[in-house]
Amino acid sequence: MRVVSEKSVEAAVLGGKTKVAIVGASGYAGEELVRLLLAHPHVDLVTATSRQFAGKTLAEIFPRFAHVEKANALRFSEADPKELARNAEIIFLALPHGLAAEFAKPLLSASARVIDLSADFRLRDAQIYKEFYGHDHPAPDLLGQAVYGLPEIYRDQIRDAKLVACPGCYPTSILIPLRPLIRRKAIERKTILVTSLSGVTGAGRKVETAYLFSECNESVRPYGVPKHRHLSEIEQELSILAGEKIMIQFTPHLVPVNRGIATTIYAGIAGGVVAVEPAVLFSGAYGQEPFVRLLGDERLPDTKNVVGTNFIDIAWRIDKRTGRLIVMSAIDNIVKGASGQAIQCFNLMRGFPETAGLL
Amino acid sequence: MRVVSEKSVEAAVLGGKTKVAIVGASGYAGEELVRLLLAHPHVDLVTATSRQFAGKTLAEIFPRFAHVEKANALRFSEADPKELARNAEIIFLALPHGLAAEFAKPLLSASARVIDLSADFRLRDAQIYKEFYGHDHPAPDLLGQAVYGLPEIYRDQIRDAKLVACPGCYPTSILIPLRPLIRRKAIERKTILVTSLSGVTGAGRKVETAYLFSECNESVRPYGVPKHRHLSEIEQELSILAGEKIMIQFTPHLVPVNRGIATTIYAGIAGGVVAVEPAVLFSGAYGQEPFVRLLGDERLPDTKNVVGTNFIDIAWRIDKRTGRLIVMSAIDNIVKGASGQAIQCFNLMRGFPETAGLL
Amino acid sequence: MRVVSEKSVEAAVLGGKTKVAIVGASGYAGEELVRLLLAHPHVDLVTATSRQFAGKTLAEIFPRFAHVEKANALRFSEADPKELARNAEIIFLALPHGLAAEFAKPLLSASARVIDLSADFRLRDAQIYKEFYGHDHPAPDLLGQAVYGLPEIYRDQIRDAKLVACPGCYPTSILIPLRPLIRRKAIERKTILVTSLSGVTGAGRKVETAYLFSECNESVRPYGVPKHRHLSEIEQELSILAGEKIMIQFTPHLVPVNRGIATTIYAGIAGGVVAVEPAVLFSGAYGQEPFVRLLGDERLPDTKNVVGTNFIDIAWRIDKRTGRLIVMSAIDNIVKGASGQAIQCFNLMRGFPETAGLL
Amino acid sequence: MRVVSEKSVEAAVLGGKTKVAIVGASGYAGEELVRLLLAHPHVDLVTATSRQFAGKTLAEIFPRFAHVEKANALRFSEADPKELARNAEIIFLALPHGLAAEFAKPLLSASARVIDLSADFRLRDAQIYKEFYGHDHPAPDLLGQAVYGLPEIYRDQIRDAKLVACPGCYPTSILIPLRPLIRRKAIERKTILVTSLSGVTGAGRKVETAYLFSECNESVRPYGVPKHRHLSEIEQELSILAGEKIMIQFTPHLVPVNRGIATTIYAGIAGGVVAVEPAVLFSGAYGQEPFVRLLGDERLPDTKNVVGTNFIDIAWRIDKRTGRLIVMSAIDNIVKGASGQAIQCFNLMRGFPETAGLL
Repeated sequence: MRVVSEKSVEAAVLGGKTKVAIVGASGYAGEELVRLLLAHPHVDLVTATSRQFAGKTLAEIFPRFAHVEKANALRFSEADPKELARNAEIIFLALPHGLAAEFAKPLLSASARVIDLSADFRLRDAQIYKEFYGHDHPAPDLLGQAVYGLPEIYRDQIRDAKLVACPGCYPTSILIPLRPLIRRKAIERKTILVTSLSGVTGAGRKVETAYLFSECNESVRPYGVPKHRHLSEIEQELSILAGEKIMIQFTPHLVPVNRGIATTIYAGIAGGVVAVEPAVLFSGAYGQEPFVRLLGDERLPDTKNVVGTNFIDIAWRIDKRTGRLIVMSAIDNIVKGASGQAIQCFNLMRGFPETAGLL
Repeated sequence: MRVVSEKSVEAAVLGGKTKVAIVGASGYAGEELVRLLLAHPHVDLVTATSRQFAGKTLAEIFPRFAHVEKANALRFSEADPKELARNAEIIFLALPHGLAAEFAKPLLSASARVIDLSADFRLRDAQIYKEFYGHDHPAPDLLGQAVYGLPEIYRDQIRDAKLVACPGCYPTSILIPLRPLIRRKAIERKTILVTSLSGVTGAGRKVETAYLFSECNESVRPYGVPKHRHLSEIEQELSILAGEKIMIQFTPHLVPVNRGIATTIYAGIAGGVVAVEPAVLFSGAYGQEPFVRLLGDERLPDTKNVVGTNFIDIAWRIDKRTGRLIVMSAIDNIVKGASGQAIQCFNLMRGFPETAGLL
Repeated sequence: MRVVSEKSVEAAVLGGKTKVAIVGASGYAGEELVRLLLAHPHVDLVTATSRQFAGKTLAEIFPRFAHVEKANALRFSEADPKELARNAEIIFLALPHGLAAEFAKPLLSASARVIDLSADFRLRDAQIYKEFYGHDHPAPDLLGQAVYGLPEIYRDQIRDAKLVACPGCYPTSILIPLRPLIRRKAIERKTILVTSLSGVTGAGRKVETAYLFSECNESVRPYGVPKHRHLSEIEQELSILAGEKIMIQFTPHLVPVNRGIATTIYAGIAGGVVAVEPAVLFSGAYGQEPFVRLLGDERLPDTKNVVGTNFIDIAWRIDKRTGRLIVMSAIDNIVKGASGQAIQCFNLMRGFPETAGLL
Repeated sequence: MRVVSEKSVEAAVLGGKTKVAIVGASGYAGEELVRLLLAHPHVDLVTATSRQFAGKTLAEIFPRFAHVEKANALRFSEADPKELARNAEIIFLALPHGLAAEFAKPLLSASARVIDLSADFRLRDAQIYKEFYGHDHPAPDLLGQAVYGLPEIYRDQIRDAKLVACPGCYPTSILIPLRPLIRRKAIERKTILVTSLSGVTGAGRKVETAYLFSECNESVRPYGVPKHRHLSEIEQELSILAGEKIMIQFTPHLVPVNRGIATTIYAGIAGGVVAVEPAVLFSGAYGQEPFVRLLGDERLPDTKNVVGTNFIDIAWRIDKRTGRLIVMSAIDNIVKGASGQAIQCFNLMRGFPETAGLL
């Protein structure tokens, strides 16, 4: 086999690359970061850490990258914050919550910019973190400088952020559809109810009985009822958008697919009357967004159309019988719900085209 | 291979068998009726019709029954109402809606008892049938004598019914959990919202692109938004229970499993205060029901625990944050949601133990 | 819910029950033993052990049995050989190899009869055990009294056995089809080549990354090439049948289904000429076997027809172009390939109808 | 959403694009051609035909392309050979066999170059076509000019071909591994035996009961035994490589994944002695091939590593016990097994880098 150095032509045209590192590169989000960053035209992946696989090349652990020169050259290393900060300009953290914050501290002190995929910096209030995650926040002093990494809401702040907290997969699928409805007061804010269906990679590469093939295959089940952790960030962001405290109902379900989240959102139409057509609201909000695809009121989203991509597909229906607006979305939980969104943030932070490496 | 005549010992003990026929035995519900009726200790399956497979034995078309004597002896026939009524005491109709009513008419005239698995006799109002099914009801005069075949609600009426209209799969998963809550006024009736996830057999053995393996596998999608046909019977039955018109929100989703429905129901707690504990309500209503399993407020239902069985598993949570009660259920859409329930009705109609052939 | 005492009528008719125990009841084979033994008309399951779940009821750990009285009454216990032997007449061991032999020793000493589902007693030669399993045999002195628990070959010996060694899942799917061909010298013995495809429960409830849902779903892969452990017992049994040393080629593949093995066997036709039609050979050998279904030379096996059952489906083709006979089989790896077969042996050992609890 | 014109920067750098058309763009291979050609830097997709969808845009039928400008602009048309030849330089035919040849004739007459994905031009002998496909060859006079589109064997001839016959999916997974072994006489040519496992897209978007989700899911089955159509081209090509008539054994199996073929090949080692190490043979043959990845004798292929790519992964084992060489491969049946390979041929025909649009 001929090992290839990808995208070299394009890169030559476009100039200098940014050195990046991935900490915790062996989980599903980490592996997807590897996939996307190896092919990113403006990236030089200099470090990928994994305690479990230290010493092995990326290609050995992820055979799907066996043809990529860099995947054969680069070996997983143990994570050493000092060395990471010395070698990379931007560092992606794909670690469990709690651990991520501990890594972020020395990296930020050493002037690296950090894109964190865990839940550690998504909440502004350390108390709410403790309520939902069950332990004290490991670095409450950093919460103030973190930017919630949802470009459709915080694009400008992300550009200059030192610390980006990428949203959870469910929140991404919920906040993007709800934002224009909240902002334009199109819905009764107290009536929001959300059901989501997620593929099994959503649980991470966790080696637990519950996620074995034969436990998930031919199985459909709700979980995290009634207070899933992601509620904390969803309600925080909706409350900020609304300018008042918002509480919602949210139930996730596990379904036997590898990837994909299908979310269905219900809310009473404000005042019982459709003041502005949803099509107008959504087009106004997202007509220029590169990763939002509006399906309108005749088609329905299907996770299979977004798997492997950074898109969110959004459709809606007005239910005149019940006076509710129903908005449905589909994303790939590992791409738009995690690693793709992280790279979208990265592109903003570095001034690259927002879609670089993502189309 | 030794072809076996099943359950002969038990049958000998228990005495005479009822002659039954299945019309439309080649779909998923029909095949499941075949499976259950071949093994039923008090049943003699005398006829199974299928236009497509007329002349073939059951064993030829369904190789899983190859060891059963009767499946090798019995050939699919064309459906002839007169002959059916002559040969069988009770006739199961597993036909598309519209067609079922046409068959039911002559059968009932000939004094056969009919258990219909289609939607044709579920609605009391022919106008609502037309609204939801898009054509005039083919036998509106029969609607008055049909009994809705949900034993947990209509047990007594089913016993003497000439014509039983088995509920749809979604309605079964929704009505059983909601009944005690409606009856005991535990929830705000205007706030009921239901999300269901269904396996692909729910669509029947329909040969359409949308149900091909590669279209459904690795795909999750809502459908029938916002006005799925089953709404008509759900709202009819809830309104009867409530003694007032009830309207609900209902969204089904298609997920890649063969069988199973997971339903999640939300409703505001009446008056915002839990007057009677759900555990008390559910135990009171279903403590003696043979096919209702109450999981309580610590466990959650999973379709894999009910697949292949006639059980409905029910769990609940009080969400103090939102003031809602969340009730979740799981059934096998082809068994408790169709053919198993039909046989449960059959047992009632014939005075057999209600669980005969179903445990 | 009404908790039911299953099969009580039938049991009353048929009389006394045999007390049995399951050691290691929490794996897939153990859970399937629970399922089948709870419903077995002549069995009283008195003990089920599981270190992990000791103290919990069967119904708590396996919610699918929540309606069964015994599953609510019986709690998993720690395995204590003395107590086991005191309480149960026949003990099923569903333990990892190595461990099983250690348990078998004291049980046999205490005069219990043992049905072992592990590999520990399948091989007659402790050296070959060491070659294939990588450690010394833990109880070589017991090998002489073990009977290989394949009723289609060793029915008579099983009846009186103290120690039955149930075959592996692959061997079951291979030996039954090959037996009449070897015995009748219909094939060139040096040319046997076998490919098998197995569902993921075949790996047991092993909590390893390789068996996570997202690692197995949408994945097809060979493994154990070229010397899978099951080769040892397959070749042992074929050699015994042939009266000479036989070596075969065997490659298993992992495919994303829960259950089922599809096996395809190739062998040169002896002398290049079909002396006796395969249909005659197979009917002669298996025409009276309760769990062998012969599909002939026009149909093909499909695992979905045997899943959940104790059947083996067998089809064949003569390939005139290549001079080979192709024989294909399908079984449920957990039933005929493990727990169902164990109960078939149990029925023989106790003089019950061989199909009791299995149809 | 912002509709994007993909790869515009790169295209501007690299210059002129080739106008291409796809005939039969609505099947799985056609849709994959659409996906790959829309993103190909040197391609201008001018026409996509589909009788069924004529008048609709590509984006309407394939929502996954909704963000691509061209997919919104281009509408499916009816196939008109004259217009096709006028508008496009190279035409991809993704039609059923029989029909493809009828289209190829007028296109070739009009001096278009044709890349056919059907079986119509793969065989050199119209008699063998008739034997395997059951009808007379529709254009036997064209067989002489067709080049078998397997770049790893016919790279030079493909460059100048007017008519390329892309290999079947199974043949691709078999011929690439076998070629160096046949050429270097490393194996006994009379002993070749192949088992393949294919995902369900291999059957095309055929709307038949056998390919419904619930018929394929939780099902594993052999089919096409013993004389699958692909045998004809496999044996033709092996015979050409060997310089003598070669006959092999081949059995395909259907497994429940969307995409992917796992092939396992067995052959006796020539003379019983490994003259040249397989690693040397395979490296010599494929060390410079851009789409062949050699896994060696310690790793094993897994379809999940090649899905969505144009790679073939190859691993091998020497089985000293049996004197056989075992070679295993994995491809994506729709990419390297169909549309990706077609584009690889296209790149050769137009002098583009062979990997253009495929990495």
